[in-house]
Amino acid sequence: MRMFMNDYSEGAAPQVLQALVDTNAEQTVGYTEGDPHCDRARDLIRQAARTPHADVEFCIGGTSANLVCVSGMLRDYEGVICTPDAHINVHETGAIAACGRTVLPTDDADGFLSPDAAERVWRFQTGCGRHMTRPALIYISDTTELGGVWTRERFDAICDWAESRNLRTYVDGARLGSALTSPDNDLDLAHIASRASAFSIGGTKNGLLFGEAIVINDAQLKETFPYIVKERGGLLAKGRLLGVQFEAAFQGGLYWKLAAHANECALALRDGLVANGFKPYGNSGSNQQFFVVSDRVGDALEKACGCESFYRIDATHRVIRFVCSWATELSDVDELIEFASAL
Amino acid sequence: MRMFMNDYSEGAAPQVLQALVDTNAEQTVGYTEGDPHCDRARDLIRQAARTPHADVEFCIGGTSANLVCVSGMLRDYEGVICTPDAHINVHETGAIAACGRTVLPTDDADGFLSPDAAERVWRFQTGCGRHMTRPALIYISDTTELGGVWTRERFDAICDWAESRNLRTYVDGARLGSALTSPDNDLDLAHIASRASAFSIGGTKNGLLFGEAIVINDAQLKETFPYIVKERGGLLAKGRLLGVQFEAAFQGGLYWKLAAHANECALALRDGLVANGFKPYGNSGSNQQFFVVSDRVGDALEKACGCESFYRIDATHRVIRFVCSWATELSDVDELIEFASAL
Amino acid sequence: MRMFMNDYSEGAAPQVLQALVDTNAEQTVGYTEGDPHCDRARDLIRQAARTPHADVEFCIGGTSANLVCVSGMLRDYEGVICTPDAHINVHETGAIAACGRTVLPTDDADGFLSPDAAERVWRFQTGCGRHMTRPALIYISDTTELGGVWTRERFDAICDWAESRNLRTYVDGARLGSALTSPDNDLDLAHIASRASAFSIGGTKNGLLFGEAIVINDAQLKETFPYIVKERGGLLAKGRLLGVQFEAAFQGGLYWKLAAHANECALALRDGLVANGFKPYGNSGSNQQFFVVSDRVGDALEKACGCESFYRIDATHRVIRFVCSWATELSDVDELIEFASAL
Amino acid sequence: MRMFMNDYSEGAAPQVLQALVDTNAEQTVGYTEGDPHCDRARDLIRQAARTPHADVEFCIGGTSANLVCVSGMLRDYEGVICTPDAHINVHETGAIAACGRTVLPTDDADGFLSPDAAERVWRFQTGCGRHMTRPALIYISDTTELGGVWTRERFDAICDWAESRNLRTYVDGARLGSALTSPDNDLDLAHIASRASAFSIGGTKNGLLFGEAIVINDAQLKETFPYIVKERGGLLAKGRLLGVQFEAAFQGGLYWKLAAHANECALALRDGLVANGFKPYGNSGSNQQFFVVSDRVGDALEKACGCESFYRIDATHRVIRFVCSWATELSDVDELIEFASAL
Repeated sequence: MRMFMNDYSEGAAPQVLQALVDTNAEQTVGYTEGDPHCDRARDLIRQAARTPHADVEFCIGGTSANLVCVSGMLRDYEGVICTPDAHINVHETGAIAACGRTVLPTDDADGFLSPDAAERVWRFQTGCGRHMTRPALIYISDTTELGGVWTRERFDAICDWAESRNLRTYVDGARLGSALTSPDNDLDLAHIASRASAFSIGGTKNGLLFGEAIVINDAQLKETFPYIVKERGGLLAKGRLLGVQFEAAFQGGLYWKLAAHANECALALRDGLVANGFKPYGNSGSNQQFFVVSDRVGDALEKACGCESFYRIDATHRVIRFVCSWATELSDVDELIEFASAL
Repeated sequence: MRMFMNDYSEGAAPQVLQALVDTNAEQTVGYTEGDPHCDRARDLIRQAARTPHADVEFCIGGTSANLVCVSGMLRDYEGVICTPDAHINVHETGAIAACGRTVLPTDDADGFLSPDAAERVWRFQTGCGRHMTRPALIYISDTTELGGVWTRERFDAICDWAESRNLRTYVDGARLGSALTSPDNDLDLAHIASRASAFSIGGTKNGLLFGEAIVINDAQLKETFPYIVKERGGLLAKGRLLGVQFEAAFQGGLYWKLAAHANECALALRDGLVANGFKPYGNSGSNQQFFVVSDRVGDALEKACGCESFYRIDATHRVIRFVCSWATELSDVDELIEFASAL
Repeated sequence: MRMFMNDYSEGAAPQVLQALVDTNAEQTVGYTEGDPHCDRARDLIRQAARTPHADVEFCIGGTSANLVCVSGMLRDYEGVICTPDAHINVHETGAIAACGRTVLPTDDADGFLSPDAAERVWRFQTGCGRHMTRPALIYISDTTELGGVWTRERFDAICDWAESRNLRTYVDGARLGSALTSPDNDLDLAHIASRASAFSIGGTKNGLLFGEAIVINDAQLKETFPYIVKERGGLLAKGRLLGVQFEAAFQGGLYWKLAAHANECALALRDGLVANGFKPYGNSGSNQQFFVVSDRVGDALEKACGCESFYRIDATHRVIRFVCSWATELSDVDELIEFASAL
Repeated sequence: MRMFMNDYSEGAAPQVLQALVDTNAEQTVGYTEGDPHCDRARDLIRQAARTPHADVEFCIGGTSANLVCVSGMLRDYEGVICTPDAHINVHETGAIAACGRTVLPTDDADGFLSPDAAERVWRFQTGCGRHMTRPALIYISDTTELGGVWTRERFDAICDWAESRNLRTYVDGARLGSALTSPDNDLDLAHIASRASAFSIGGTKNGLLFGEAIVINDAQLKETFPYIVKERGGLLAKGRLLGVQFEAAFQGGLYWKLAAHANECALALRDGLVANGFKPYGNSGSNQQFFVVSDRVGDALEKACGCESFYRIDATHRVIRFVCSWATELSDVDELIEFASAL
């Protein structure tokens, strides 16, 4: 059976891979510095985001993108407010601390950073002057760690709050494709670009071999990014590979089609499992789907399709995650539903 | 005319690219953690280096490999001894300092770290106890920044010295393929593996899209590498891409054939230019060739083939560099010699 | 009225100051390296802690002591488990992150790190291999941030747990004098020294002008401390000042007498206020006393004696803190009780 | 015989110590935040430097002052240009790298940073864009490591150059008192304050128990200093001790008198030794004096007066250093000259 383990289990979408093959013999300068593919990809992204004055940069991966952007927008003693389950707080081995900056988690339990919780952190952290890390940035991810999709109303509310406190806003878009093509979504790239100080557009999890594009409005990050991405090891020597892939992804809207397809599979999986009595965990409208299952069922599914265990619920139940990608087929979904329903 | 700018101007060698295409639809776990391609590549490299007990890890690029290995072998207050032109001292935007460690350059002028110069640094740095950064590692690169190839005698001498001072040894092998296939070479992978605490085998500059393999003997680095490579953003989500490429490169000796070919082109270029009166700079036996030229000739060559300017010699002369890769053809070399000789 | 703001509001205890005056004209080498006062202070502390093989080092202040010890016992990707209100998590401006290490707070609400809560953090942080910061150290402080005093039973329980997980143990003893002379205490210096990897003995808050002594059992910290304390700016040029002060403090038990006196004042204050209807917050048996008061009463007390506001309870109530020191007199306490009771 | 080892061998000048005794029982808030002594010291320093708009901050020691100021004026990927013998490059255990920043030494051999050498470093470091650490600051010290005193002409030249390259200027004034009271000097505090982005006024080496004052013109450092000094452990809890001491030192010009006296002794020592055939090393006009001596003479002097060995000249000769302080007496100098001349 097809694995539903992750959206980085396969290689690249065929069109992206073909672009790499087609351009393989070209000779270009390195480091994303002015090769025609990076330039064209930059233009395509700026057009898609209707943000002609933004810088578009490229980074080799998601952790690298996050640590470069976060540290590039913070002074040494400043911190970034995020939810407790944020990728930068949990799954990046302390990468932000390794850059000398502090992660300041709220108590938001659903993966969405809320103005109220963020305000509590801000008040606490600014209540003792220089004796405490000063918040200067918020980090949100769309989709959230639990597959949640930010609505425009929710997004504007946290952006408004951040502005009111004079904080920058960074959106981790590792799964931004899935977010913006979800039925739950009413945001678009241009609106995000109009409000975020910087945001990433994930390639790794949406059909590229690797790579994230970063859209930068913030003047300080525009200046610091090129240096920090090199200093932190996130700059690719054959930089044009990033350009070639994002060019292929953003030409003709392939990026959105791949993401929409992954969502379609994931939502079909959700509906099929729910119809068969499975209990969803959280409320994901995107390509990751979470369910509470007994350990017996979890073990069987894990063995069959590689789905991962996420949280323990009680002594005999846990949360598992299925992930669909551009490569998943609806027939794979049907096969999984049938298998799961027979357990 | 073909560019002679760098060995990362093209994509991947056809066999490597084909391996990526052939395996594209496979589903594997991520992060180089146990997918069959990474496992097989690890075995091939361990066999080639005759070092069954070494760990073999992968990293997305050269700066990343260097900063992970160097910081992984140093305590906070320790430093790494290297030549002043070392890549970590010059061209990595302070990446070692960004990890909190200190680079301790000698006064070696030819790119080879010498025991005498290293001893002077060591004596100086250990002459005032805790008030000075303590040396704990030496960094050498084969080939050197000027294309020099380490002989076994020279290599053993610096390793002997490092051992006598209880220092670890790290070999940056970004161009190790070119080094070990040079006519000037009498080292082999197994001998390096028998003496170095860790060394890298560069893929980026020898026919891969990207990626470096790291061979680790040092017990401390074996433990720290997996964490630090993640924390520093050097771990690839679709980790098997590194395995697939190194598997292709080390199966049947492709890696060495590609490097030998680049050397052949570079040495033909050297001989052709020398025969036409060009004056070499340094003594490179590898795929980078350096020449002292007038600015007029330098400008013309730079425009024609993208060769880079390296050092200024005097008001009207400079050092330029030509680089050959697996993709260079001998006919390209002939064309360049003809062009240059007519200047 | 005397201020009850802090235990670092005054200068040094008269005996300590006199020792500085008496030795002022002596000439000694610097940096705590072998002057007779540091040596004698080291001996006195080793004797008091019955730990002849421990290293005793000195540091200029509490934040400095914490960041040197914590970073000196952690690798780059490791973290320290502590309570959420721990000084290193809240009031040191991200000093641990500034050293590249991660603080891993539990959900303990009372200032005491509990094995259960620490185990939950440990399980969570070790559940995803290298993708998460690895815990390697626990941090506790005696007294706690809320004035709590560790009992031997509680202390042994957390030490047992830490040992079972192969973690080091660090005790921040900024107010260790107050802790070990509290009526609530059944620990002693020797027992702490027998179990902690390292702990500090605070001078700043118990009668010295400044300075903390650090008792180190851990072999790694023994090696790294001398370098890191210099590298991080925590080493005093006129190092003997630390020796002179700790010598005066530990000769004849002055250190314990000063602390016991501060406790006596604080407990008299507590009893007097409780007798007059004030409501304690938490359960402090040491020189800091916390009360829940109305804002009206809080404002009046703050103005009168400089007590600080700590937490907001509700729209009209807050927690305030009174601190007594070696310099507080029982008559000051009586005056404050009388004033407070009239509000 | 009196030691001539260092200017931090004794305690505090009597007037400074008396001020500490006189104010010992006062109760003040901590952390240099608004106690009357710090405020008064700030005013006195601003008046002395005729710089009413500068911030004046305090730090516990010289390494701490340097690392806070340097890192506070640099972004993560920026570096500081200095001479190779600069304290931050040699004797602070990599403290700048520990803050993630890079030290960029010139090839100046005499301790004075020259515009020509600095320009060479600047050109080199800016010749390859983001691949190299970007210089953003120059560091000079007055006096230099070899006791050299900056003239106004020399100082203006390096400041002019720094301005022309848009670099900030930091002056390490650990021995600024000795510099500005030297016969070789034609600078004054006001002129330094009119040109430097920030500079320190050393207390440790000129009659205080410890402590440096920092005068800050730079807007960025004004904002960052208060946080970084805390984060890096350089903030004193009983902050008023710094205020009390600098108040005593700058009231009535004591600071300059102490320094002038140390200089007088040192120059008498120089003249006396030269008259007896000793060969000076370098050209110090301040409180440190360097001589080339045979090892036999060096050993005898080291044993007699604690003078330190600095450099080896050849197999049988070395450079030794004598240091005078506020506590040295002319009779001590005479005794030393007599002793040395008899060797």
